[in-house]
Amino acid sequence: MDTYLISRAVAELGECLSVEENMLATAESCTGGLLSSILTDCPGSSQWYAGSVVAYAYEVKSKLLGVDPMVLEKHGAVSEPVVKAMAEGVIKAIGANVSVAISGIAGPGGGTPEKPVGTVWMAWTWPGGTRAKSYSFEGTRQEIKEQSVMAAINGLLSVVR
Amino acid sequence: MDTYLISRAVAELGECLSVEENMLATAESCTGGLLSSILTDCPGSSQWYAGSVVAYAYEVKSKLLGVDPMVLEKHGAVSEPVVKAMAEGVIKAIGANVSVAISGIAGPGGGTPEKPVGTVWMAWTWPGGTRAKSYSFEGTRQEIKEQSVMAAINGLLSVVR
Repeated sequence: MDTYLISRAVAELGECLSVEENMLATAESCTGGLLSSILTDCPGSSQWYAGSVVAYAYEVKSKLLGVDPMVLEKHGAVSEPVVKAMAEGVIKAIGANVSVAISGIAGPGGGTPEKPVGTVWMAWTWPGGTRAKSYSFEGTRQEIKEQSVMAAINGLLSVVR
Repeated sequence: MDTYLISRAVAELGECLSVEENMLATAESCTGGLLSSILTDCPGSSQWYAGSVVAYAYEVKSKLLGVDPMVLEKHGAVSEPVVKAMAEGVIKAIGANVSVAISGIAGPGGGTPEKPVGTVWMAWTWPGGTRAKSYSFEGTRQEIKEQSVMAAINGLLSVVR
């Protein structure tokens, strides 16, 4: 992971959020807190970052993020409706107005023919709406986590710029 | 950070938790998700790791972890009563039976003469009780985060072994 590029992107994100007095929250599944950790590597991030729910277990997605268990059951944790619900849910849970949610299969296990390892769904919520996108990343568990974090930050930049 | 040593410690932690069918949850403030990210770098960690609340903003400690705002006000976020309440709160919030909570001052700002940069309080909760400890770490923001994570994992090992 190019730490210089990442820290520059995070610094820009922080500036954009601060200017409008926005607060960011994150909901992470396959990245397991890596996004949150990278955001908080930036000194002063408490000015624009409220926190994260790392919903690693299935039930946490319902319990803390309010994802409807029927939606989880029908579409699976790695799906557009679930990441949208996670992104909207974490805003309420944590108290923020901008968010990103990530749910994917980082491997090495857990892949299926329909959703192979590297499949990652993300959603961004901001005062203007919610948008979701799917990715097919390749590489090791660590590489898939890192590519997911970079994509999440780039997506945030495009909604707050 | 010695990634080999860390991954060995996490693998041992996972084995100890799995044997007794324990589930772990974490509550992080100054480490900002780094602990959670490192735990989930271990493939199969979903068997013993439920998730994390990264309570970066003051209010999240009350809202999601149930820390009494009066206790926060009286003792400050970096204190024994607050980390104990965070460790006990995250067990209820996430649904787990073993936890660790971390709250500290990673710097470069935020230090006071009484609680200088590097002051970190941690608490561990398991079916046998809750225990807390304070640390005085030295180094950069990143180094203080990494030393905190290592201490949190060592503390977990000593309660689950």
